[in-house]
Amino acid sequence: MDLLQAFAWRYATKKMDPTRPVPAEKVERIIEAVRLAPTSSGLQPFELIVITNAELRAKIVPIAYGQQQIVDGSHLLVFAAWDTYTAERINAAFDTANAQRGFTNEGWENYRQTLIGRYPPRSAAENFAHTARQAYIGLGFALAAAAVEEVDSTPMEGFDSAALDELLQLPAKGLKSVLLLPLGYRDAANDWLVNLKKVRRTREQFVTELK
Amino acid sequence: MDLLQAFAWRYATKKMDPTRPVPAEKVERIIEAVRLAPTSSGLQPFELIVITNAELRAKIVPIAYGQQQIVDGSHLLVFAAWDTYTAERINAAFDTANAQRGFTNEGWENYRQTLIGRYPPRSAAENFAHTARQAYIGLGFALAAAAVEEVDSTPMEGFDSAALDELLQLPAKGLKSVLLLPLGYRDAANDWLVNLKKVRRTREQFVTELK
Repeated sequence: MDLLQAFAWRYATKKMDPTRPVPAEKVERIIEAVRLAPTSSGLQPFELIVITNAELRAKIVPIAYGQQQIVDGSHLLVFAAWDTYTAERINAAFDTANAQRGFTNEGWENYRQTLIGRYPPRSAAENFAHTARQAYIGLGFALAAAAVEEVDSTPMEGFDSAALDELLQLPAKGLKSVLLLPLGYRDAANDWLVNLKKVRRTREQFVTELK
Repeated sequence: MDLLQAFAWRYATKKMDPTRPVPAEKVERIIEAVRLAPTSSGLQPFELIVITNAELRAKIVPIAYGQQQIVDGSHLLVFAAWDTYTAERINAAFDTANAQRGFTNEGWENYRQTLIGRYPPRSAAENFAHTARQAYIGLGFALAAAAVEEVDSTPMEGFDSAALDELLQLPAKGLKSVLLLPLGYRDAANDWLVNLKKVRRTREQFVTELK
């Protein structure tokens, strides 16, 4: 499907069909899109948790205020951002780049030191504000890929992140949950939103051109 | 181009070809992708400023620490988020939805009141942290659309947002700049990054599966 057609087709699905799982190869392409998403300085300061376990997803429903797509879909993506930047994490990212590229250079190494001098001394709250934003780029790529695959999804910010972090034991990994994205297929007969017109401000309302 | 191929093809272009403008119809499709991006409660709490004016873009280069893609590209997108949520803004979004859908209902109107009760009393800083995140979803959609159009782009967080806000007179509109995205075409002969391998953590490093 053409990308803009896919963007018009997608919507925040309110009722998913629990009998229709998303094929694994489609999920893999959605995961790969998130993995390829760009992030600030290429640090990829978040991880993706893919939950299919039904019992675990059932425990997450009340944490997300009863949103049933979490269990009616077949896969739940959790975007979990780094709780802060550390020298260790920045070094790991730069070392990965050097290993994958097979060389290093002075400018790149200087940039590593710049980031190590800038990020770790900041508060964890300031750093997490930045890492969480990067997860939203990943969400955008996931939504785009899901739409192109004609897979339905429901982006969710509305959940008790502290409770989810505890359930998934994220603090031990230095992660904090930021976003949920159930994947599945719309149950069109029972979704109140599926036939409502997608609402956006008009181009005139949304865009200013400075020529 | 296939979406994952496009995501592999794209990169944060470091040198753009100033002789090759992006065709207007491609820019329109990128803008439309951003307009269609989902946002929390559908409020679309950001605007898109599209700058082609060369003199204005030249003034932005020093504000963005000398990044020449701003003038070497043909279009500069500025993602400017609402500085806070107000009852007026929330009402306008809900009124737009009612107008475009041609009806209203009680659940929807109750939800309007919930948001009006929840967001405007919060600090502007807390609200802006939320509106800015929504702009990153829009950035994700812009990056996806640009890649599919085989248009190069360079996402930028590194600029003096207060100086840019003043230059573009954003405070009077209740907006704050969050992201820049120059659009153009890579100057492959002069871009140090174009031939370097794209680096990402492996799927094993990036993804945890809970089955």
